[in-house]
Amino acid sequence: MNASGNDDRLIVNCIPVGQEDRQRFLDAAGDVAIAFAGDFDHYGDMKVQAQIPVALRSRATAVIGNFDPEIASELPRLEWLQTWSAGVDKYLKPGVLPETVKVTSATGAYGQSVGEHMFAMTLALMKNLAQYARADAAHQWRDAGEVTSPEGATALILGTGDIGSHYATLVKAVGMKTIGVRRDAGKPAEGIDRMYGFDDLDELLPDADVVALSLPSTPQTRHILDSPRLESLKPETIIINGGRGDAIDLDALAESLDSGAVRAAGLDVTEPEPLPEDSPLWDEPRCLITPHVAGGSHLSVTDSRVIDIALANVRRYAAGEPVVDNAHR
Amino acid sequence: MNASGNDDRLIVNCIPVGQEDRQRFLDAAGDVAIAFAGDFDHYGDMKVQAQIPVALRSRATAVIGNFDPEIASELPRLEWLQTWSAGVDKYLKPGVLPETVKVTSATGAYGQSVGEHMFAMTLALMKNLAQYARADAAHQWRDAGEVTSPEGATALILGTGDIGSHYATLVKAVGMKTIGVRRDAGKPAEGIDRMYGFDDLDELLPDADVVALSLPSTPQTRHILDSPRLESLKPETIIINGGRGDAIDLDALAESLDSGAVRAAGLDVTEPEPLPEDSPLWDEPRCLITPHVAGGSHLSVTDSRVIDIALANVRRYAAGEPVVDNAHR
Repeated sequence: MNASGNDDRLIVNCIPVGQEDRQRFLDAAGDVAIAFAGDFDHYGDMKVQAQIPVALRSRATAVIGNFDPEIASELPRLEWLQTWSAGVDKYLKPGVLPETVKVTSATGAYGQSVGEHMFAMTLALMKNLAQYARADAAHQWRDAGEVTSPEGATALILGTGDIGSHYATLVKAVGMKTIGVRRDAGKPAEGIDRMYGFDDLDELLPDADVVALSLPSTPQTRHILDSPRLESLKPETIIINGGRGDAIDLDALAESLDSGAVRAAGLDVTEPEPLPEDSPLWDEPRCLITPHVAGGSHLSVTDSRVIDIALANVRRYAAGEPVVDNAHR
Repeated sequence: MNASGNDDRLIVNCIPVGQEDRQRFLDAAGDVAIAFAGDFDHYGDMKVQAQIPVALRSRATAVIGNFDPEIASELPRLEWLQTWSAGVDKYLKPGVLPETVKVTSATGAYGQSVGEHMFAMTLALMKNLAQYARADAAHQWRDAGEVTSPEGATALILGTGDIGSHYATLVKAVGMKTIGVRRDAGKPAEGIDRMYGFDDLDELLPDADVVALSLPSTPQTRHILDSPRLESLKPETIIINGGRGDAIDLDALAESLDSGAVRAAGLDVTEPEPLPEDSPLWDEPRCLITPHVAGGSHLSVTDSRVIDIALANVRRYAAGEPVVDNAHR
């Protein structure tokens, strides 16, 4: 801990950082005290919950890390939370944090990692690879039938922030057409050929070969892919979700997969998580489920981007400037 | 059948073609008789063996389709074989066909289909998707650990014909560096950044993040990835084979996967095929095996390309010009 001067602010940094990054944070914090509370058992793994030492809770004016929202009431002086996740929905729910607390996310750190994961899922499902991997486990050499190609296919991308835009860039690079849907249709995004607002969604769905979701969890996005919308898709359509699990009605999706109303689904997020052991989706051979690992910490470049985002805001916080988020509040 | 005039040549076309394509073949053949012997049970599936009607065998001067090499001796008048496969090795083996028989392959038809399949395998293995698909079947929500990224990674591509070149174009489009290895290092190929000859292979292997094979089966390519070469790879390396199964020593590969000497392998071809039920490769969670389906007929564009290649050669054959192959003899 490095408490100095008459500034009584305290940043509790829960990222497990090495010596070099620690010095960068100290330099960025300047006169503001910064305590390092990272759990080195989880070095390079920022999916776990941040543990704020009890002794620091009453003093912390800023926290870097995703703590349990249940302990929010134990942080009476909190004025800024920097998450290491892209999503911040659980901290924005009414009653969790006072309106005065500024919440900034690590949006921008996950585009490459999650975008690539969604892209790999898309191609794997076009080529039946999830079915083949299951057949391999059973020692079965068996043709799984028709495949599809990215060449000339259309990806409808719901949510075109950092993640959706990176995904769009990748699918476009291998010959797909990209249609984006975002709140502000007038705002372009890299990799997106044409942008629409959510009012146009019902008209766009029937032409999509891939529907890729990278949406935050909000009342407006909850079950945005519901039964009627799933029914409006082509039987060749592949659905990919790398955003939040509640964007898809998973009961309806299981039915659509079972009936062949859609070709396949790749889900890195589900509702709830973990996906319950008795979910019918596990047994759908054309459903590829990954346990919310697309972002996580599995690509080292993601960690360093999270640190860079946090550092930039620590500098602003120390200078008395407003902290910045690329997407939220 | 359409026998006409005094030309006593007979083309037996074993591709199951519809009315429209049949007319195109008749037009291309001109005065040369052409018999349609396609098996419509296998319409759109050119992986099966061509069945040449017994009554036509003594008369056939040309065959379109991959017949059983065992019946070659029943084709005394054969002067040209057009395969529907890219590989023709089984017809080039000594003693199968007289030296005078011209063999042309469908090289050029499979680049997109096989290249995309190899690409999808590469990304799937970078992101542990084969492991996740197996875990799904067991209803397990479990993190499979570190992933890798195509961004900045190096693909070493052995064989840079139609397939290798298409694969190179795809991996390059998503940020990989591409190094090609071919017999004639002076001949460039689309998508390949730098080209080398096979003499440089041992030097190139230790730096490869992906080793992708699309080689024909020849005495020179048999077990080109053997135990010492596999041992020279980085533990992060992914191996992809979309060419012929005998290019890799599969016993050595199984050991390398088991010991973690290489990260993963994606095999659309094996030696022998089907892969024996007791092969240890089936149980390697980082080994993704597909049953020689990357080319096949699973992408409709492949079929039409095979037909176009055959048609062009039928036109040449009818005109008395030499038939053409993009790769072989």
